Amino acid sequence: MTPTSQTPRTIAWIGDADRGFLRLLDQTLLPMKVKYRDCRTSKHVWEAIRNLRVRGAPAIGIAAAYGMVLACQRWKVAVDRDTFLAVFKKHGNELRTSRPTAVNLFWALDRMEARALQHSEYPLYPSKEFAAFMLDEAREIETEDRDMCRAIGRVGAELIQPGQGVLTHCNAGGLATADYGTALAVLFTASEQGKNIRVFADETRPLLQGARLTAWELQQRGIDVTLICDSMAAQVMKEGRVQMVIVGADRIAANGDTANKIGTYGVALLARAHGIPFYVAAPSSTFDLSLPDGAAIPIEQRDPREVTHGFGRQTAPDGIHVYNPAFDVTPAELIAGLITEKGLIRPVSGETIRAVLQ
Amino acid sequence: MTPTSQTPRTIAWIGDADRGFLRLLDQTLLPMKVKYRDCRTSKHVWEAIRNLRVRGAPAIGIAAAYGMVLACQRWKVAVDRDTFLAVFKKHGNELRTSRPTAVNLFWALDRMEARALQHSEYPLYPSKEFAAFMLDEAREIETEDRDMCRAIGRVGAELIQPGQGVLTHCNAGGLATADYGTALAVLFTASEQGKNIRVFADETRPLLQGARLTAWELQQRGIDVTLICDSMAAQVMKEGRVQMVIVGADRIAANGDTANKIGTYGVALLARAHGIPFYVAAPSSTFDLSLPDGAAIPIEQRDPREVTHGFGRQTAPDGIHVYNPAFDVTPAELIAGLITEKGLIRPVSGETIRAVLQ
Repeated sequence: MTPTSQTPRTIAWIGDADRGFLRLLDQTLLPMKVKYRDCRTSKHVWEAIRNLRVRGAPAIGIAAAYGMVLACQRWKVAVDRDTFLAVFKKHGNELRTSRPTAVNLFWALDRMEARALQHSEYPLYPSKEFAAFMLDEAREIETEDRDMCRAIGRVGAELIQPGQGVLTHCNAGGLATADYGTALAVLFTASEQGKNIRVFADETRPLLQGARLTAWELQQRGIDVTLICDSMAAQVMKEGRVQMVIVGADRIAANGDTANKIGTYGVALLARAHGIPFYVAAPSSTFDLSLPDGAAIPIEQRDPREVTHGFGRQTAPDGIHVYNPAFDVTPAELIAGLITEKGLIRPVSGETIRAVLQ
Repeated sequence: MTPTSQTPRTIAWIGDADRGFLRLLDQTLLPMKVKYRDCRTSKHVWEAIRNLRVRGAPAIGIAAAYGMVLACQRWKVAVDRDTFLAVFKKHGNELRTSRPTAVNLFWALDRMEARALQHSEYPLYPSKEFAAFMLDEAREIETEDRDMCRAIGRVGAELIQPGQGVLTHCNAGGLATADYGTALAVLFTASEQGKNIRVFADETRPLLQGARLTAWELQQRGIDVTLICDSMAAQVMKEGRVQMVIVGADRIAANGDTANKIGTYGVALLARAHGIPFYVAAPSSTFDLSLPDGAAIPIEQRDPREVTHGFGRQTAPDGIHVYNPAFDVTPAELIAGLITEKGLIRPVSGETIRAVLQ
């Protein structure tokens, strides 16, 4: 099995720096259609991020970086330093408006700007060489993400025994990153090692990322995956079908308390009740050591219509009250280990986290 | 608040025995439309049961009983005993084909037939008096169900303190019975007692009975109800919003192990983890004392399309494996008490169950 050749890539730069373009897998059409969207201007990239054709913090950052390469292709005249900066920032600021709360988007654009400023002398002439210089940085951002995912996969795969059943919640897969994901990287790696795992994917209400994305990614890579409703996880555990739970993370506090998609905390409690180890896979950038514990993590409330109109038509009475928290926080004591690109953190505590992250 | 006058009735016989008809709330249109369906022949009743316009074991039995009254209205000639029995059975057997696995349907039709045989001398003349005789029995079946629901409501409401939050899963409400339900009867009664409860209703994937039916029933009766996805129950408990869980039951074994809608077992584990008492409300007819424990209760697997094509559109990849158990079994040790029309069974054990049910 050669997953990367079989699996559609989330993000790919096609062609050379001067005339190439960004090809994105349009995630709004998954899992029914595998269709690519070619972005040939930074405005195209803006549209793709804005309309969730590309999603997931790392993937958004990478797409924006390539968007800046596209912006550089279109300069036709020599510019002085101030003009260059003004035009460059204008394109960058436009891209920032596509998802104003996505931290990785800002981080990637800042990095592209810093790199541009390192380039040679002014006036700056439009050249293949300058586009290639910018493309190198975008590729570097992508490569770093890819390496990080692969490292998480290697660290986590050591925890999995051949033939084990693994349950996951939401989507912490390649679609949110350059190609390999975090929690799913562990499963992809274990599968490549021939471990014949069986995966149960929670559909993950309300937005069904598990049904639409995780089930699809695992299926694409030929991994034995079974879709269940979130309410079936306890029964699947009771029947002995699952020996491990692994999920991603949105934010991890200094003591290991972990914010992730709503439902994660419940899965952790069910795992504990059945004696099944519960792991979190996340890059070191997910840790926020300024937060002492999970109590400081704010829980975003989302649109009630995600619950009442989730499947293309209304499924609840008009005017019904809805509680729709986007995340929950799983206390560190329910987490068997944190799988990072820098190594496994186990047991989970403030000390072991600091020791691995340094 | 006078709930029964405000709330649309699931089932009502309209008019006299001779020319009256059965009016059913069409549950396939809920919660978007409150529309009644008038059944003037037993064939109409067959259609309504078959197409789930009326659902829930007690409600189906009551509808079928009234269907036999409609059949009796249409006899135009005097008949001898054998002919009467043949025609009566023909109508009954037709109704039995509407939901061949519904035990209450068979029970109600057997009871109507036994009653018919008690009637006077043969030949039997078509008469208002005979239709009224049959209508009395159908009304009796409805009244017994109504009384049973009210008794469950009274027993359970004593467990609820003013201002408490209560979580429920699936629909054990008036829509499945003559008018008041089992788990919801407890909430309706507590509310009528002025206890100002707050209810959290799990939407209950895959078929969303909680979103479509439970949320609607509680809203109709003016009870403070909040709809959540099943995956949010743990978070709601963690935030201290819930002081009690109450659900219905499909089947209860001799030791108290309880089969109910998939997801119930998980809710019971989450309640235990948060120190919240978990109650089951069910009529004594739900107990199957021939089963020593829950291991003997078969778990029906249902159509994968309930998960992949939930409500009008496909939400999972083509060809994905799905695990879709209809029920799970909650072990007696997780159940704080069983609320029946004969009284509260607490603690739950083989002895206490036999003592209350006799």
